[in-house]
Amino acid sequence: MQALVPFDARHPKSRLSDVLDDDERQGFARAMLADVLDALDQAGHSATVLSTAPVECDAPVVVDDRPLTTAVNDALDDRPLPVSIVMADLALVTPDALDSLFETAGDVVLAPGLGGGTNALAVRHHEFQVDYHGTSVHDHRENAKAVDADLGVVDSYRLGIDIDDPMDLIEVLLHNNRRARAWLVDAGFRAEAHDGRATVTRPDGKG
Amino acid sequence: MQALVPFDARHPKSRLSDVLDDDERQGFARAMLADVLDALDQAGHSATVLSTAPVECDAPVVVDDRPLTTAVNDALDDRPLPVSIVMADLALVTPDALDSLFETAGDVVLAPGLGGGTNALAVRHHEFQVDYHGTSVHDHRENAKAVDADLGVVDSYRLGIDIDDPMDLIEVLLHNNRRARAWLVDAGFRAEAHDGRATVTRPDGKG
Repeated sequence: MQALVPFDARHPKSRLSDVLDDDERQGFARAMLADVLDALDQAGHSATVLSTAPVECDAPVVVDDRPLTTAVNDALDDRPLPVSIVMADLALVTPDALDSLFETAGDVVLAPGLGGGTNALAVRHHEFQVDYHGTSVHDHRENAKAVDADLGVVDSYRLGIDIDDPMDLIEVLLHNNRRARAWLVDAGFRAEAHDGRATVTRPDGKG
Repeated sequence: MQALVPFDARHPKSRLSDVLDDDERQGFARAMLADVLDALDQAGHSATVLSTAPVECDAPVVVDDRPLTTAVNDALDDRPLPVSIVMADLALVTPDALDSLFETAGDVVLAPGLGGGTNALAVRHHEFQVDYHGTSVHDHRENAKAVDADLGVVDSYRLGIDIDDPMDLIEVLLHNNRRARAWLVDAGFRAEAHDGRATVTRPDGKG
Protein backbone atom coordinates (compact mmCIF):
# COMPACT_ATOMS: atom_id res chain seq x y z
CA MET A 1 0.00 0.00 0.00
CA GLN A 2 1.09 3.58 -0.63
CA ALA A 3 1.65 5.36 2.67
CA LEU A 4 1.62 9.10 3.33
CA VAL A 5 3.63 10.25 6.34
CA PRO A 6 2.81 13.87 7.27
CA PHE A 7 5.73 15.64 8.92
CA ASP A 8 6.16 19.15 10.28
CA ALA A 9 9.76 19.95 9.38
CA ARG A 10 9.52 23.55 10.57
CA HIS A 11 8.16 23.44 14.11
CA PRO A 12 8.04 19.78 15.05
CA LYS A 13 6.87 18.62 18.47
CA SER A 14 6.24 22.04 19.97
CA ARG A 15 4.56 20.43 22.99
CA LEU A 16 7.95 18.99 23.95
CA SER A 17 9.43 22.49 24.32
CA ASP A 18 9.57 22.19 28.13
CA VAL A 19 12.05 19.33 27.88
CA LEU A 20 13.75 19.76 24.47
CA ASP A 21 15.08 22.91 22.82
CA ASP A 22 14.42 23.76 19.16
CA ASP A 23 17.38 21.87 17.73
CA GLU A 24 16.68 18.87 19.93
CA ARG A 25 13.07 18.74 18.86
CA GLN A 26 14.22 18.75 15.23
CA GLY A 27 16.63 15.90 15.92
CA PHE A 28 14.20 13.82 17.91
CA ALA A 29 11.37 14.31 15.41
CA ARG A 30 13.65 13.14 12.58
CA ALA A 31 14.68 10.07 14.58
CA MET A 32 11.01 9.14 15.03
CA LEU A 33 10.32 9.80 11.34
CA ALA A 34 13.20 7.49 10.38
CA ASP A 35 11.80 4.74 12.64
CA VAL A 36 8.33 5.08 11.12
CA LEU A 37 9.77 4.96 7.57
CA ASP A 38 11.80 1.85 8.50
CA ALA A 39 8.73 0.08 9.85
CA LEU A 40 6.73 0.93 6.70
CA ASP A 41 9.57 -0.33 4.51
CA GLN A 42 9.84 -3.57 6.49
CA ALA A 43 6.07 -4.03 6.22
CA GLY A 44 6.46 -3.77 2.44
CA HIS A 45 4.87 -0.38 1.97
CA SER A 46 5.95 2.52 -0.15
CA ALA A 47 6.09 5.75 1.83
CA THR A 48 5.98 9.37 0.74
CA VAL A 49 6.71 12.03 3.34
CA LEU A 50 4.30 14.95 3.13
CA SER A 51 6.35 17.67 4.75
CA THR A 52 5.87 21.36 5.53
CA ALA A 53 9.46 22.00 4.36
CA PRO A 54 12.28 20.02 2.74
CA VAL A 55 13.64 17.25 4.97
CA GLU A 56 16.36 14.67 4.41
CA CYS A 57 15.05 11.17 4.92
CA ASP A 58 14.93 7.73 3.38
CA ALA A 59 11.78 8.31 1.29
CA PRO A 60 10.48 10.69 -1.39
CA VAL A 61 9.35 14.02 0.05
CA VAL A 62 6.47 16.17 -1.17
CA VAL A 63 6.59 19.67 0.32
CA ASP A 64 3.22 21.23 1.13
CA ASP A 65 3.05 23.95 3.77
CA ARG A 66 -0.72 24.20 3.91
CA PRO A 67 -2.62 22.96 6.99
CA LEU A 68 -2.43 19.21 7.58
CA THR A 69 -6.05 18.45 6.66
CA THR A 70 -5.85 20.31 3.33
CA ALA A 71 -2.51 18.80 2.40
CA VAL A 72 -3.60 15.24 3.15
CA ASN A 73 -6.93 15.54 1.35
CA ASP A 74 -5.21 16.89 -1.76
CA ALA A 75 -2.61 14.12 -1.60
CA LEU A 76 -5.41 11.54 -1.33
CA ASP A 77 -7.10 13.04 -4.42
CA ASP A 78 -3.89 12.68 -6.40
CA ARG A 79 -3.27 9.01 -5.67
CA PRO A 80 -4.77 5.66 -6.61
CA LEU A 81 -6.31 4.03 -3.54
CA PRO A 82 -5.70 2.33 -1.16
CA VAL A 83 -3.52 4.85 0.64
CA SER A 84 -2.58 4.84 4.29
CA ILE A 85 -1.77 7.90 6.38
CA VAL A 86 0.64 7.19 9.19
CA MET A 87 1.80 9.91 11.59
CA ALA A 88 5.52 10.57 11.85
CA ASP A 89 5.56 10.52 15.66
CA LEU A 90 4.44 6.91 16.11
CA ALA A 91 7.75 5.90 17.65
CA LEU A 92 6.31 2.61 18.94
CA VAL A 93 5.19 1.41 15.52
CA THR A 94 6.34 -1.97 14.22
CA PRO A 95 5.76 -3.82 10.94
CA ASP A 96 3.31 -6.10 12.81
CA ALA A 97 1.29 -3.14 14.05
CA LEU A 98 1.17 -1.75 10.51
CA ASP A 99 0.08 -5.15 9.19
CA SER A 100 -2.82 -5.11 11.63
CA LEU A 101 -3.87 -1.72 10.22
CA PHE A 102 -3.63 -2.88 6.63
CA GLU A 103 -5.28 -6.26 7.28
CA THR A 104 -8.33 -4.91 9.13
CA ALA A 105 -11.38 -4.97 6.88
CA GLY A 106 -13.05 -1.67 6.00
CA ASP A 107 -13.32 1.04 3.37
CA VAL A 108 -11.79 3.27 6.00
CA VAL A 109 -9.74 1.78 8.85
CA LEU A 110 -8.58 4.02 11.67
CA ALA A 111 -6.23 3.62 14.60
CA PRO A 112 -7.37 5.81 17.51
CA GLY A 113 -4.70 7.78 19.33
CA LEU A 114 -4.55 9.27 22.82
CA GLY A 115 -6.95 12.13 23.42
CA GLY A 116 -9.15 11.47 20.39
CA GLY A 117 -6.48 11.66 17.71
CA THR A 118 -6.32 9.53 14.58
CA ASN A 119 -2.80 8.16 14.43
CA ALA A 120 -3.16 6.06 11.31
CA LEU A 121 -5.74 5.54 8.57
CA ALA A 122 -6.13 3.13 5.68
CA VAL A 123 -8.36 4.66 3.01
CA ARG A 124 -10.02 2.58 0.29
CA HIS A 125 -13.00 4.86 -0.43
CA HIS A 126 -12.71 7.69 -2.96
CA GLU A 127 -15.07 10.11 -1.27
CA PHE A 128 -13.63 9.88 2.25
CA GLN A 129 -11.96 13.05 3.51
CA VAL A 130 -9.75 13.52 6.52
CA ASP A 131 -10.23 16.18 9.18
CA TYR A 132 -7.42 16.40 11.71
CA HIS A 133 -8.82 19.43 13.49
CA GLY A 134 -10.41 18.78 16.90
CA THR A 135 -11.36 15.29 18.05
CA SER A 136 -10.47 13.64 14.77
CA VAL A 137 -11.34 10.07 15.73
CA HIS A 138 -14.93 11.26 16.13
CA ASP A 139 -14.90 13.32 12.92
CA HIS A 140 -13.41 10.45 10.91
CA ARG A 141 -16.17 8.12 12.08
CA GLU A 142 -18.74 10.70 10.99
CA ASN A 143 -16.98 11.34 7.68
CA ALA A 144 -16.92 7.62 6.90
CA LYS A 145 -20.63 7.32 7.70
CA ALA A 146 -21.43 10.37 5.55
CA VAL A 147 -20.01 8.69 2.42
CA ASP A 148 -21.36 5.19 3.28
CA ALA A 149 -17.87 3.82 3.85
CA ASP A 150 -17.55 0.70 6.02
CA LEU A 151 -15.47 1.67 9.02
CA GLY A 152 -12.86 -0.59 10.60
CA VAL A 153 -11.05 0.20 13.85
CA VAL A 154 -7.71 -1.34 14.75
CA ASP A 155 -7.00 -1.85 18.44
CA SER A 156 -3.26 -1.22 18.82
CA TYR A 157 -1.18 0.31 21.59
CA ARG A 158 1.75 0.73 19.19
CA LEU A 159 -0.41 2.74 16.81
CA GLY A 160 -2.34 4.51 19.57
CA ILE A 161 0.55 6.11 21.44
CA ASP A 162 1.87 9.13 19.57
CA ILE A 163 4.78 11.03 21.09
CA ASP A 164 3.53 14.53 21.73
CA ASP A 165 3.88 15.39 25.41
CA PRO A 166 6.80 14.96 27.85
CA MET A 167 4.93 12.15 29.61
CA ASP A 168 4.97 10.17 26.34
CA LEU A 169 8.78 9.96 26.27
CA ILE A 170 8.80 7.06 28.73
CA GLU A 171 6.93 5.00 26.12
CA VAL A 172 9.83 5.47 23.70
CA LEU A 173 12.36 4.35 26.31
CA LEU A 174 10.27 1.30 27.18
CA HIS A 175 8.93 0.17 23.80
CA ASN A 176 11.19 1.46 21.00
CA ASN A 177 14.57 -0.15 20.37
CA ARG A 178 15.68 1.94 17.39
CA ARG A 179 16.71 5.49 16.59
CA ALA A 180 14.20 7.38 18.71
CA ARG A 181 15.18 5.50 21.85
CA ALA A 182 18.89 5.87 21.06
CA TRP A 183 18.37 9.60 20.53
CA LEU A 184 16.76 10.01 23.97
CA VAL A 185 19.41 7.89 25.70
CA ASP A 186 22.19 9.89 24.00
CA ALA A 187 20.49 13.09 25.16
CA GLY A 188 20.64 11.86 28.75
CA PHE A 189 17.06 10.71 29.32
CA ARG A 190 16.50 7.83 31.73
CA ALA A 191 13.43 5.98 32.94
CA GLU A 192 12.37 6.72 36.49
CA ALA A 193 10.00 4.39 38.34
CA HIS A 194 7.29 5.73 40.62
CA ASP A 195 4.37 4.29 42.53
CA GLY A 196 2.21 5.30 39.60
CA ARG A 197 3.36 5.48 35.99
CA ALA A 198 7.05 5.67 35.18
CA THR A 199 8.34 8.91 33.66
CA VAL A 200 11.62 10.10 32.20
CA THR A 201 14.27 12.11 33.95
CA ARG A 202 17.24 13.92 32.42
CA PRO A 203 19.75 14.38 35.22
CA ASP A 204 22.10 16.68 33.31
CA GLY A 205 19.81 18.32 30.79
CA LYS A 206 17.11 20.84 30.19
CA GLY A 207 14.27 18.49 31.26
CA MET B 1 -10.07 -19.03 31.71
CA GLN B 2 -10.24 -18.06 35.36
CA ALA B 3 -9.69 -14.32 35.73
CA LEU B 4 -8.53 -12.43 38.81
CA VAL B 5 -9.57 -8.78 38.98
CA PRO B 6 -7.64 -6.90 41.68
CA PHE B 7 -9.63 -4.01 43.15
CA ASP B 8 -8.83 -1.45 45.82
CA ALA B 9 -12.17 -1.00 47.57
CA ARG B 10 -10.75 1.26 50.27
CA HIS B 11 -8.88 4.04 48.49
CA PRO B 12 -9.58 3.56 44.80
CA LYS B 13 -8.19 5.91 42.16
CA SER B 14 -6.38 8.28 44.51
CA ARG B 15 -4.70 9.98 41.54
CA LEU B 16 -8.11 11.25 40.47
CA SER B 17 -8.51 13.21 43.72
CA ASP B 18 -8.02 16.55 41.94
CA VAL B 19 -11.18 15.99 39.93
CA LEU B 20 -13.29 13.55 41.99
CA ASP B 21 -13.99 13.54 45.73
CA ASP B 22 -13.79 10.36 47.86
CA ASP B 23 -17.37 9.23 47.27
CA GLU B 24 -17.12 9.97 43.57
CA ARG B 25 -13.92 7.96 43.22
CA GLN B 26 -15.68 5.03 44.92
CA GLY B 27 -18.59 5.31 42.53
CA PHE B 28 -16.51 5.72 39.40
CA ALA B 29 -14.14 2.87 40.35
CA ARG B 30 -17.14 0.55 40.86
CA ALA B 31 -18.59 1.55 37.48
CA MET B 32 -15.29 0.63 35.79
CA LEU B 33 -15.12 -2.64 37.76
CA ALA B 34 -18.63 -3.52 36.60
CA ASP B 35 -17.66 -2.84 32.97
CA VAL B 36 -14.56 -5.03 33.26
CA LEU B 37 -16.60 -7.85 34.84
CA ASP B 38 -19.19 -7.56 32.05
CA ALA B 39 -16.53 -7.80 29.36
CA LEU B 40 -14.98 -10.87 31.03
CA ASP B 41 -18.40 -12.50 31.30
CA GLN B 42 -19.17 -11.79 27.63
CA ALA B 43 -15.79 -13.23 26.66
CA GLY B 44 -16.77 -16.42 28.51
CA HIS B 45 -14.42 -16.08 31.43
CA SER B 46 -15.06 -16.68 35.10
CA ALA B 47 -13.94 -13.73 37.21
CA THR B 48 -13.04 -13.48 40.88
CA VAL B 49 -12.54 -10.02 42.35
CA LEU B 50 -9.51 -9.83 44.61
CA SER B 51 -10.42 -6.86 46.77
CA THR B 52 -8.82 -5.02 49.67
CA ALA B 53 -12.24 -4.87 51.37
CA PRO B 54 -15.74 -6.25 50.75
CA VAL B 55 -17.37 -4.85 47.62
CA GLU B 56 -20.75 -5.50 46.03
CA CYS B 57 -20.37 -6.62 42.44
CA ASP B 58 -21.46 -9.25 39.96
CA ALA B 59 -18.71 -11.78 40.75
CA PRO B 60 -17.33 -13.70 43.73
CA VAL B 61 -15.09 -11.54 45.93
CA VAL B 62 -12.00 -12.67 47.83
CA VAL B 63 -10.89 -10.07 50.40
CA ASP B 64 -7.14 -9.73 50.86
CA ASP B 65 -5.77 -6.47 52.20
CA ARG B 66 -2.09 -7.26 51.68
CA PRO B 67 -0.09 -5.45 48.98
CA LEU B 68 -1.18 -6.19 45.40
CA THR B 69 1.86 -8.27 44.44
CA THR B 70 1.59 -10.54 47.50
CA ALA B 71 -2.15 -10.99 47.14
CA VAL B 72 -1.95 -11.85 43.43
CA ASN B 73 0.96 -14.28 43.82
CA ASP B 74 -0.87 -16.13 46.60
CA ALA B 75 -4.04 -16.24 44.53
CA LEU B 76 -2.05 -17.66 41.59
CA ASP B 77 -0.60 -20.36 43.87
CA ASP B 78 -4.08 -21.40 44.96
CA ARG B 79 -5.55 -21.86 41.48
CA PRO B 80 -5.21 -24.29 38.58
CA LEU B 81 -3.66 -22.50 35.60
CA PRO B 82 -4.25 -20.80 33.22
CA VAL B 83 -5.30 -17.72 35.14
CA SER B 84 -5.55 -14.19 33.83
CA ILE B 85 -5.10 -11.03 35.88
CA VAL B 86 -7.08 -8.10 34.54
CA MET B 87 -6.98 -4.69 36.21
CA ALA B 88 -10.28 -3.22 37.38
CA ASP B 89 -9.64 0.20 35.79
CA LEU B 90 -9.50 -0.96 32.17
CA ALA B 91 -12.61 0.97 31.24
CA LEU B 92 -11.93 0.58 27.51
CA VAL B 93 -11.79 -3.21 27.60
CA THR B 94 -14.05 -5.24 25.31
CA PRO B 95 -14.59 -8.99 24.88
CA ASP B 96 -12.56 -8.78 21.63
CA ALA B 97 -9.61 -7.18 23.41
CA LEU B 98 -9.77 -9.90 26.09
CA ASP B 99 -9.90 -12.56 23.37
CA SER B 100 -6.70 -11.16 21.89
CA LEU B 101 -5.04 -11.51 25.30
CA PHE B 102 -6.22 -15.08 25.77
CA GLU B 103 -5.47 -16.12 22.17
CA THR B 104 -1.88 -14.81 22.08
CA ALA B 105 0.58 -17.69 22.40
CA GLY B 106 2.90 -17.77 25.40
CA ASP B 107 3.41 -19.27 28.85
CA VAL B 108 3.05 -15.71 30.06
CA VAL B 109 1.23 -13.11 27.95
CA LEU B 110 1.24 -9.49 29.01
CA ALA B 111 -0.57 -6.36 27.91
CA PRO B 112 1.64 -3.30 28.49
CA GLY B 113 -0.03 -0.25 30.00
CA LEU B 114 0.85 3.44 29.95
CA GLY B 115 4.02 4.31 31.85
CA GLY B 116 5.37 0.78 32.07
CA GLY B 117 2.43 -0.84 33.82
CA THR B 118 1.11 -4.34 33.18
CA ASN B 119 -2.61 -4.00 32.67
CA ALA B 120 -3.39 -7.64 31.97
CA LEU B 121 -1.59 -10.98 32.14
CA ALA B 122 -2.41 -14.51 31.09
CA VAL B 123 -0.36 -16.96 33.14
CA ARG B 124 0.15 -20.58 32.07
CA HIS B 125 3.46 -21.24 33.86
CA HIS B 126 3.49 -22.45 37.48
CA GLU B 127 6.69 -20.73 38.54
CA PHE B 128 5.92 -17.26 37.18
CA GLN B 129 5.42 -14.58 39.82
CA VAL B 130 4.00 -11.10 39.42
CA ASP B 131 5.66 -7.91 40.64
CA TYR B 132 3.52 -4.82 40.32
CA HIS B 133 5.97 -2.53 42.06
CA GLY B 134 7.94 -0.14 39.81
CA THR B 135 8.08 -0.59 36.04
CA SER B 136 6.19 -3.86 36.05
CA VAL B 137 6.23 -4.48 32.31
CA HIS B 138 10.02 -4.70 32.57
CA ASP B 139 9.97 -6.84 35.71
CA HIS B 140 7.42 -9.24 34.23
CA ARG B 141 9.62 -9.75 31.16
CA GLU B 142 12.54 -10.53 33.47
CA ASN B 143 10.45 -12.80 35.71
CA ALA B 144 9.25 -14.79 32.68
CA LYS B 145 12.82 -15.17 31.42
CA ALA B 146 14.02 -16.26 34.87
CA VAL B 147 11.66 -19.26 34.88
CA ASP B 148 12.12 -20.07 31.15
CA ALA B 149 8.56 -19.09 30.32
CA ASP B 150 7.80 -18.16 26.71
CA LEU B 151 6.62 -14.55 26.74
CA GLY B 152 3.83 -13.21 24.56
CA VAL B 153 2.93 -9.54 24.28
CA VAL B 154 -0.48 -8.35 23.13
CA ASP B 155 -0.63 -5.03 21.31
CA SER B 156 -3.92 -3.46 22.40
CA TYR B 157 -4.97 0.13 23.03
CA ARG B 158 -8.07 -1.08 24.89
CA LEU B 159 -5.91 -3.11 27.27
CA GLY B 160 -3.10 -0.55 27.40
CA ILE B 161 -5.07 2.49 28.60
CA ASP B 162 -5.84 2.22 32.30
CA ILE B 163 -7.78 5.04 33.91
CA ASP B 164 -5.54 6.50 36.58
CA ASP B 165 -4.98 10.20 35.92
CA PRO B 166 -7.40 13.01 35.07
CA MET B 167 -6.09 13.10 31.49
CA ASP B 168 -7.27 9.49 31.05
CA LEU B 169 -10.93 10.39 31.58
CA ILE B 170 -11.29 11.59 27.99
CA GLU B 171 -10.55 8.04 26.86
CA VAL B 172 -13.60 6.81 28.79
CA LEU B 173 -15.84 9.44 27.19
CA LEU B 174 -14.53 8.57 23.72
CA HIS B 175 -14.17 4.79 23.83
CA ASN B 176 -16.46 3.35 26.54
CA ASN B 177 -20.22 3.14 25.97
CA ARG B 178 -21.22 1.52 29.23
CA ARG B 179 -21.39 2.31 32.94
CA ALA B 180 -18.10 4.19 33.30
CA ARG B 181 -18.99 6.61 30.53
CA ALA B 182 -22.54 7.04 31.85
CA TRP B 183 -21.13 7.72 35.32
CA LEU B 184 -18.88 10.51 34.00
CA VAL B 185 -21.65 12.05 31.90
CA ASP B 186 -24.03 11.98 34.88
CA ALA B 187 -21.34 13.67 36.96
CA GLY B 188 -21.17 16.50 34.43
CA PHE B 189 -18.01 15.64 32.53
CA ARG B 190 -17.83 16.64 28.87
CA ALA B 191 -15.20 16.25 26.17
CA GLU B 192 -13.36 19.41 25.20
CA ALA B 193 -11.41 19.61 21.94
CA HIS B 194 -8.06 21.39 21.73
CA ASP B 195 -5.34 21.80 19.14
CA GLY B 196 -3.57 18.91 20.84
CA ARG B 197 -5.27 16.09 22.67
CA ALA B 198 -8.85 16.44 23.82
CA THR B 199 -9.46 16.56 27.57
CA VAL B 200 -12.51 16.53 29.83
CA THR B 201 -14.15 19.51 31.39
CA ARG B 202 -16.75 19.59 34.17
CA PRO B 203 -18.48 22.93 33.91
CA ASP B 204 -20.46 22.68 37.17
CA GLY B 205 -18.33 20.34 39.24
CA LYS B 206 -15.20 19.96 41.28
CA GLY B 207 -13.02 19.26 38.21
